[in-house]
Amino acid sequence: MSAYLTILGFNSAIPTVNSSPTAQFLEIDERCFLIDCGEGTQVQLRKAKVRFSKINHIFISHLHGDHCFGLPGLIASFRLLGRETALHVYGPKGIKEMLETIFRITETQRGFEVVYHELEGYTSAKIYEDNRLEVFTIPLNHRVYCNGYLFREKPKERHLNMAEISKYPEIETCDYQNLKSGKDFVLSDGYILKNEVLTTAPSKSVSYAFCSDTRYSEKILQLIEGVDLLYHESTFLHDLKEMADYTGHSTALEAARIAKKARVGKLILGHFSNRYGDLSVFTEEAREVFANTFLPKALEPVKIDL
Amino acid sequence: MSAYLTILGFNSAIPTVNSSPTAQFLEIDERCFLIDCGEGTQVQLRKAKVRFSKINHIFISHLHGDHCFGLPGLIASFRLLGRETALHVYGPKGIKEMLETIFRITETQRGFEVVYHELEGYTSAKIYEDNRLEVFTIPLNHRVYCNGYLFREKPKERHLNMAEISKYPEIETCDYQNLKSGKDFVLSDGYILKNEVLTTAPSKSVSYAFCSDTRYSEKILQLIEGVDLLYHESTFLHDLKEMADYTGHSTALEAARIAKKARVGKLILGHFSNRYGDLSVFTEEAREVFANTFLPKALEPVKIDL
Repeated sequence: MSAYLTILGFNSAIPTVNSSPTAQFLEIDERCFLIDCGEGTQVQLRKAKVRFSKINHIFISHLHGDHCFGLPGLIASFRLLGRETALHVYGPKGIKEMLETIFRITETQRGFEVVYHELEGYTSAKIYEDNRLEVFTIPLNHRVYCNGYLFREKPKERHLNMAEISKYPEIETCDYQNLKSGKDFVLSDGYILKNEVLTTAPSKSVSYAFCSDTRYSEKILQLIEGVDLLYHESTFLHDLKEMADYTGHSTALEAARIAKKARVGKLILGHFSNRYGDLSVFTEEAREVFANTFLPKALEPVKIDL
Repeated sequence: MSAYLTILGFNSAIPTVNSSPTAQFLEIDERCFLIDCGEGTQVQLRKAKVRFSKINHIFISHLHGDHCFGLPGLIASFRLLGRETALHVYGPKGIKEMLETIFRITETQRGFEVVYHELEGYTSAKIYEDNRLEVFTIPLNHRVYCNGYLFREKPKERHLNMAEISKYPEIETCDYQNLKSGKDFVLSDGYILKNEVLTTAPSKSVSYAFCSDTRYSEKILQLIEGVDLLYHESTFLHDLKEMADYTGHSTALEAARIAKKARVGKLILGHFSNRYGDLSVFTEEAREVFANTFLPKALEPVKIDL
């Protein structure tokens, strides 16, 4: 099982020649998710050599253009490529009206269903679940209604301790699943073999939290506690803290404080204002508080389960 | 006075890593026009080093995504860059509803006015005029309502023939403007000096016709007769003529026939289907009929008044 995050774009507001607005491609346990979809995301996906057909779930944080203006084109391309599989789009209420208006006026007929999951709650909710993975909203504090997303593997099965198990001929192969799921084994004489003797701890479950765009908000700490990787926006450096508050963004120092207080494994910053040329100033500021901080590298997959 | 066309993108349907959907930047007599605006156009404009503030008029041929999905992002960027000047958008009826729905839902507040010029006519109409230039629609034949655009400099002033004029002391400087505009001069004895003696022919007026997307249509011939430069789509080669008709497109051979029949100066092809790798097959086919045919070169300005 592997988990990779490929950041497709991370600049704020205006696309430039060398950088793209927010979009990320996340692959966990062979599940693929697109997070945000700024203009040009479909080209970034091509550069990252992501097969479009792998994308069945798209999570949009908020309805500012730099996070969603790539959606109409991506969905139109899905159609042109003959897609038939349903596409699930998660995002703030309004996303359906916007996309369906565009598709009606541009006569974008679709050969597949777009299933909208419109969000309007202000408390965290589980919005996706399969046998291995769950996705939760992380209510953020931006100028407009905005959610981050928490992707978390469910607890995995315990590993069989065959050295111990082989001592008990009564334990058969058909019992292994119960052992993996944590159950004790009762011998025919009534003696209870404790599960922790017959198995060892499961592999660690991977977790990733995407938090953009947002002001500094300690309300998210409990939700993102201990995640392996946190992407937290840092549009400004802390000397522009007032500007950050006013525009609904965070500073690098604040992102680092969140990472530290939530005891995350690793922090990646992003969504930098175009006013900054050399981005190393962001990690310099953040590492004073949280050492394991990194700049994003577009199109370079980052392994999440280190 | 100079006239340059910069093709920003010319591929059809799906943006790829190396090519962009339709968009062109036209500069005539210091007037600047954007024609079509596929996804990613704002980045192409940056690559072409076009100052965004030069663009006050945008002409959209039709409401298929590969010709208009770059508009919301471009207009949002105008706002972020502090634009105050009104922006004129010309395009099929529906463009206003689409853009205003997007701006409402994405809360794209604007500090400038967007003036919509919605088109629904099926005969050519003059839609722009200033003291030097006129723009006309070219009704095209596509799957959906679609217009090409004809940009034409007005007839220029005649040049003064000073060698002749100096023979007549009665002609004063204040009479020059009348002469330039073609009027004869009446001497005090009643003798009429013919204008063609006192002036020479004006410089040639430049004209450019943009025709995409369209089936082969001889109805446009009269409108584009003698233009200096014609951009005509050729999505397919002629062996796929049926496919072209079915999808509302032209072949390279057909584009060349139009160029020849309309006696244009130069033909540039575009909007090629992604099925073609080496594009030289398009000029090979077209040059059999119209020799002065060229492939587009993205971001390289083409002088129109040769």
